[in-house]
Amino acid sequence: MRENSRGMLLVLSGPSGCGKGTLVRNLQEADPTFVFSISCTTRAIRPGEIPDVHYHYLTDERFDALIEQDAFLEYASVHGFRYGTLKQETEERLARGENVILDIDPQGGMNVMKKHPDCVSIFVLPPSFEVLEQRLRKRATESEEQVLLRLSNARKEVLCRGQYRYNLINDALEDAVQDLLAITRAEKHNTVRFFPEIN
Amino acid sequence: MRENSRGMLLVLSGPSGCGKGTLVRNLQEADPTFVFSISCTTRAIRPGEIPDVHYHYLTDERFDALIEQDAFLEYASVHGFRYGTLKQETEERLARGENVILDIDPQGGMNVMKKHPDCVSIFVLPPSFEVLEQRLRKRATESEEQVLLRLSNARKEVLCRGQYRYNLINDALEDAVQDLLAITRAEKHNTVRFFPEIN
Repeated sequence: MRENSRGMLLVLSGPSGCGKGTLVRNLQEADPTFVFSISCTTRAIRPGEIPDVHYHYLTDERFDALIEQDAFLEYASVHGFRYGTLKQETEERLARGENVILDIDPQGGMNVMKKHPDCVSIFVLPPSFEVLEQRLRKRATESEEQVLLRLSNARKEVLCRGQYRYNLINDALEDAVQDLLAITRAEKHNTVRFFPEIN
Repeated sequence: MRENSRGMLLVLSGPSGCGKGTLVRNLQEADPTFVFSISCTTRAIRPGEIPDVHYHYLTDERFDALIEQDAFLEYASVHGFRYGTLKQETEERLARGENVILDIDPQGGMNVMKKHPDCVSIFVLPPSFEVLEQRLRKRATESEEQVLLRLSNARKEVLCRGQYRYNLINDALEDAVQDLLAITRAEKHNTVRFFPEIN
């Protein structure tokens, strides 16, 4: 018996403030075989963030050059900034058998689903838009204008949720973490990536 | 937020002696929303079995009549006896939101997958054919001839395992139970049956 050595590509989307970051940290603590894909972004670095750990921070010019080279698995504009996932970096990790997490917006998510139909796609939902608004206001890193922009984007983004394989409501965090761990444990047994030998 | 009210159809196959029965009992204890589909069979009742609880025990004539009426979701011959699942009984249960377990052989399993592409299909494997043989001999209800017939069938049946959505190796029982619970928990969040409202 042996597992297919290729890793799982986990596509995680959901509105800003729905708690994807916390869910991913809990997944990684419980199962260190999951590694975060490091996205490229043109947005400014935030306090506490580390270059090439949280994001690859790029200028607009460098981002354009990588688009020209067809270096992105997906890229998209969100809240006026650009985000992208490097093709080669992702492929190398999957080939090494690592389980790669992509925390991307629905535009990017749907592009990846087309290129990787076997990816495990999860859309994370807040219990309600009211709760989402409260969570966004608590962040304090966001201006009033940005909160309203993110809320308006959230209402559009959730319309895509049916195109993901799984929907997950982040109401009580511990339940949502257990749901996420169930999905990743289950998908390790999916025959698209698990075909055990028997002698 | 609400779950789709339709239940999950869980198709469980695997060679005799691989421990499907024990896995199902553990699933039902942990999650009583899963009900066992009661198969029809033409084989004789075994000590300890209860009619219409473990199986509907039918004569060959009655089984033929039900085939004529197109009453079966699937039926198949295994080890010289016939087994079948009643269409109406299964549909009524799914419509009531019950999660229905079908413990059926691969012939039946693949027929159900065609009719219900959204079913959750799991093939249970023993860790090896050697272990399977030991388990079959411990049962004591089987003659030597039956043990050899089941082993020979097992080698053919496992060839179908790639057509199931999930493969599960029943080596350490507690691990296999946790795998099964992860699959059923994950599949409750599959967007084919879960499409939450958000307000």
